[in-house]
Amino acid sequence: MPELRRDPVIGRWVIISTERGRRPVAVPEPETKKEAGFCPFCEGNEDKTPPEIFAFRAPSTRPDSPGWTVRVVPNKFPALQIEGSLNRRADGMYDKMSGIGAHEVIIETPDHTMETSQLSAEHVRRVLAAFRERVLDLKKDARFRYILVFKNHGQPAGASLEHSHSQLIATPIIPKRVAEELDGAKQHYDLKERCVFCDMLQQETSDGKRIVMENDEFVAFAPFAPRFPFETWILPRVHGAAFEAIEEVQLALFAETLKETLMRINIALNCPSYNYILHSAPCKTPDLEYYHWHVEIMPKLTRVAGFEWGTGFYINPTSPEDAAQFLGQISIEEPKEAS
Amino acid sequence: MPELRRDPVIGRWVIISTERGRRPVAVPEPETKKEAGFCPFCEGNEDKTPPEIFAFRAPSTRPDSPGWTVRVVPNKFPALQIEGSLNRRADGMYDKMSGIGAHEVIIETPDHTMETSQLSAEHVRRVLAAFRERVLDLKKDARFRYILVFKNHGQPAGASLEHSHSQLIATPIIPKRVAEELDGAKQHYDLKERCVFCDMLQQETSDGKRIVMENDEFVAFAPFAPRFPFETWILPRVHGAAFEAIEEVQLALFAETLKETLMRINIALNCPSYNYILHSAPCKTPDLEYYHWHVEIMPKLTRVAGFEWGTGFYINPTSPEDAAQFLGQISIEEPKEAS
Repeated sequence: MPELRRDPVIGRWVIISTERGRRPVAVPEPETKKEAGFCPFCEGNEDKTPPEIFAFRAPSTRPDSPGWTVRVVPNKFPALQIEGSLNRRADGMYDKMSGIGAHEVIIETPDHTMETSQLSAEHVRRVLAAFRERVLDLKKDARFRYILVFKNHGQPAGASLEHSHSQLIATPIIPKRVAEELDGAKQHYDLKERCVFCDMLQQETSDGKRIVMENDEFVAFAPFAPRFPFETWILPRVHGAAFEAIEEVQLALFAETLKETLMRINIALNCPSYNYILHSAPCKTPDLEYYHWHVEIMPKLTRVAGFEWGTGFYINPTSPEDAAQFLGQISIEEPKEAS
Repeated sequence: MPELRRDPVIGRWVIISTERGRRPVAVPEPETKKEAGFCPFCEGNEDKTPPEIFAFRAPSTRPDSPGWTVRVVPNKFPALQIEGSLNRRADGMYDKMSGIGAHEVIIETPDHTMETSQLSAEHVRRVLAAFRERVLDLKKDARFRYILVFKNHGQPAGASLEHSHSQLIATPIIPKRVAEELDGAKQHYDLKERCVFCDMLQQETSDGKRIVMENDEFVAFAPFAPRFPFETWILPRVHGAAFEAIEEVQLALFAETLKETLMRINIALNCPSYNYILHSAPCKTPDLEYYHWHVEIMPKLTRVAGFEWGTGFYINPTSPEDAAQFLGQISIEEPKEAS
């Protein structure tokens, strides 16, 4: 059973997950290759993953068989375990609890060679719809306080398998990083009675200098204080705290925005590794007036080093104005193939 | 001039340092090699760095010439710039200021092939004495609120030059990560009238199960909630908030502890990349009763991925009890050479 432990000074929780240490990945990890060999996420290998939880598949096909376009399975080496109770307890001055949670993998395509931005907008919409389905389902479990949806693409970004997939982790506590964002947004709201992200949209769209792309429902822009070169955020224009409340029209445009933004990043930076993270409201407070769901995309071009670890500051050699201009002016008519 | 920008939600400051983007390092960075070629930190190449600020050198030798054992120079590609005023200002809803600060490099040895743990304890003591000298000097500058001393060893840990060196950055604001640690320690003190780090020392030394090594003045142990496998902290037994107030006897034992701990990590993990960070009190509050200076060493064996970025949680596949036992039982009689 994984264990959640709290640092007594800074309040940071860590997951001590020794089972996960046994997964078949060497430490330090080798570089990713387009492996010609076996991939458990490829069509035809459905029996090599735990049984599927959800899938978009052709009407006549059966679970855990070919015929799907998007498929969700439990992580074979979960950071948290679904069964059990939290069992909060002390260890002298320290606090710990059992590592209860859900850890799922969203396999984005049956095709091993496709990266998210190469999928059709309709296919990306299904990936996002799968996120929504799984979040709505897991929210029924009263033990979970937060559900994080994220993607690691490429080994430098932490992906241990190359086949395009995203992940979801449900946690029994609201993570520190999420709580900080909620607190900051609440402070702004308490002071001004306005959502800080709505204010940001207002300034960014009227300024224009950090805009990467926009459509009727979404704006992609380089944030004012990006941690990393070419960091890009996608915000819905209409205020809403919880991603899972997204409507169908919005979902289709979200897919288009995500696809096009990743395509621009891939063309500009020669298909870099990246992480993206869906920032959304906690399970039990989906209607916050002060919070606004969004996505943060972070290409992995620089390394986090001692200064960043020690301060929480980031040193970024590329201004967001330069990055946005570069991403915005790229021609996406003939997208370059992923190499 | 670099610019400090504040994220309006989470309050995180970033340094937009476009000058630094011009330093001669490709992005993404290539793997470190024992380069046979030119190194600006080697003895004889003193004219290839900015003029030295401080050095331990043989009595008859002149600055910026051979004959030194430890040498401190300004970073040639500084993240922050020493001249100028802060010029705090708004940009619509956003906050920014000029990137004023100091960024220095402590060249730990004239010998390109030596890693910290291979230096003699007396030599390591001089490196630490150089840290103290520079901190005491920079504290005289009223613009600086915090001075961070850290080391990036190996390319995965963010080092752009292989020659053994550490760094120091003085910042005009107290970094978020530091403020969080101070706040957490203060909360514990307000509740219990005891330093949380002193409490930690008490529990760790009486428990013993996470101890890596100890001597009369210092204890090295795996923290209860480590972010990374084999993360190791070094705490002075005697309470003190500011590293720079360290006494001579303590300094020698600190050097021994740091050297031996790094040696154990190098033997156990085959000379991994690592970061270490000196955690010390802010410039203007060196006598805090609730804070306790220390060092946090983080070997780079795992990658930080989307989950960690999104939550501030860390997934650690190695328990600190296992790590401490492994590090503690290693024979350090015949240290393995760095490969």
